[in-house]
Amino acid sequence: MSCNSPIGVFDSGVGGLTVAKEIMRQLPDEQIVYFGDTARVPYGSKSKKTITTYTRQIVRFLQSKDVKAIVVACNTASAYALETVRKEVPVPMIGVVKPGAKAAAEATRNGRIGVIGTEGTIKSGIYTEFLSATNPNVTVFGKACPLFVPLVEEGWLQDPITVEVAKRYISELLDKDIDTLVLGCTHYPLLRKLIREVVGERVTLVNPAYETAVTLRTLLQERGLAHPKRDTLPEHTFFVSDGADKFREFANSILPCEVVETKDVNIESFEEEN
Amino acid sequence: MSCNSPIGVFDSGVGGLTVAKEIMRQLPDEQIVYFGDTARVPYGSKSKKTITTYTRQIVRFLQSKDVKAIVVACNTASAYALETVRKEVPVPMIGVVKPGAKAAAEATRNGRIGVIGTEGTIKSGIYTEFLSATNPNVTVFGKACPLFVPLVEEGWLQDPITVEVAKRYISELLDKDIDTLVLGCTHYPLLRKLIREVVGERVTLVNPAYETAVTLRTLLQERGLAHPKRDTLPEHTFFVSDGADKFREFANSILPCEVVETKDVNIESFEEEN
Repeated sequence: MSCNSPIGVFDSGVGGLTVAKEIMRQLPDEQIVYFGDTARVPYGSKSKKTITTYTRQIVRFLQSKDVKAIVVACNTASAYALETVRKEVPVPMIGVVKPGAKAAAEATRNGRIGVIGTEGTIKSGIYTEFLSATNPNVTVFGKACPLFVPLVEEGWLQDPITVEVAKRYISELLDKDIDTLVLGCTHYPLLRKLIREVVGERVTLVNPAYETAVTLRTLLQERGLAHPKRDTLPEHTFFVSDGADKFREFANSILPCEVVETKDVNIESFEEEN
Repeated sequence: MSCNSPIGVFDSGVGGLTVAKEIMRQLPDEQIVYFGDTARVPYGSKSKKTITTYTRQIVRFLQSKDVKAIVVACNTASAYALETVRKEVPVPMIGVVKPGAKAAAEATRNGRIGVIGTEGTIKSGIYTEFLSATNPNVTVFGKACPLFVPLVEEGWLQDPITVEVAKRYISELLDKDIDTLVLGCTHYPLLRKLIREVVGERVTLVNPAYETAVTLRTLLQERGLAHPKRDTLPEHTFFVSDGADKFREFANSILPCEVVETKDVNIESFEEEN
C-alpha cells in the first residue's frame, strides 16, 4: 500500500459511478478500482446484518487489489456497515453520508433539511444523526423513495411518470418548508434535473458525491498517500458480480473515460475468516 | 422421501406466495416448506449463470428439509435454471412456465398471446418456446415490465401511477390484437384487478399459479407421493435469506393460513459441491 496504489470504490450497482465520476474529476491522478454488486442489487431494502456481510466480502476483494483507501459509494452500506467494518481493516474507509450531511448542514439557512434515500438509509436515521452532530439546531425530515432506483434503471430519467412519483415522494417534505434536500442515494443525481423541477429554485440540492471527493483528497494528503501528478490519465478498472456487459454500457453512458472492460467476480467466495 | 414429506416451494422473494396459496387451496393436505430469497431479490435483471447458482443453493437447502418435490415458483428461475438443475437432483422439480404456457395456448381463440414478465423471463424467450411447442400456430408478443415488482412491493396496487405504468407497458401488446395475456411473474397476480382495467374484458388473463398446482397434483398422484387425507391442516414452514419479520407480515396479508414464524437462512453457505 503506497501512494501508487489505487482507490477502491464500491456500490450495490451502477449508482456509485456518480461518485467515481466526481473522484475522477477532482482527483484526476488517482486510479480507481470499482466494484458494483450487481448480482445482489438493490441494497436499500435489505437488513443491516446482510449489508454488513456483503460489505465485508467486497472490502476483502478490494484489499486483494492492494487499494490504499476505500470509498463506500453507497448510502445504505455507509449507513449500515461502515462503522463496523472500518474497525476491522487497516485501510482507511470513508462513506458518502458524513460528507453529505456536512454539506447540507452548511447549506441550510432555515435549519429545515429533507433527506431522500432508500428504505435502509432512511430507517437507519444516520443522516439525522450526523446532521444533528454537526448542528444541533437543524430539523431533519427523511423520506424513503424505493421507486427511484428502478425508474433510473428503466431509463425514465425525464418521464411524466417519474415526475408524478417524485411529486408524491417529495411533496410532504416541501410541506415541511425544507430549504435543503440531500440526494441520499447515489442513483438520485441522475434524476437531478427532474427533482429540481419538482422542488423549484428555492431548495438547495445536495449531492454527497462532491463532498465525498473533497474528503478523500484531504485524507490522502494528510496520510501522504496522494498520487504524484501523472502525464497521462490513469487506467481505471471495473468489476461486478453479474452482468458485466450491461454494466459497461451504462458506465460508458455516464463516465468521462471509456470503460474498455468489466470483469465478473464471484464475490460470495470472498468469505469472512471469522 | 415419502408421501409424508413436504413440498419445497421457492421464489426470489414474496411473489411465489401466490403460487403457495394456490397449492394450499388445491392440495390442502400437502405441507409446504417455502423459501424466499429476499436477500438477493430481484432475480429478473440477473444473468442465467447467477440465477442457476442461486437455484442450486436453494435446491440444496430444500433437500436438507427432505422435500418430495420442488416447485420453482419464480418465472425467471424456471426460465433460466430449471432445465439444468432438475437433471442434477433426484427429487422431481416443476416450474411455473410450462403450466402457464399450456393454459395460455388452450385459452387463446385468435392465436395471439401476450406475455409480461421480468427482463430475464422475457429475454429468455422461454414462453414463446413452450407456447410454440404446444401450438405452432400461435404468435407470441413478450414485454418486460421491470417496474411492476417494485410497485407491488411499494404497495401501490390500486394507484393512478401504477395504472399509467401498466398502460405504458401493455398498450403495445393490445396494439398487436392479443386476446390472451400471461401474467409471467408471480408478483403480477397481485396487480390483476388493475391489469384487468387496462386490458378490458376481451383479453383472458392467465395466472400460471393455478395450472402449476394442477400439474403438481398430477405429478404426486402418478408417483404415489400424494399425502393421505388429514384431519387438521398441515403446518407450513417459511424460510428467507433476509428480513424474516417483513416477510411474515407480507405473507400474513396474502395467505389463508397464519404464518407464525419465519426463519432466516444463510443461503450462501449451501454451496455447490462441484
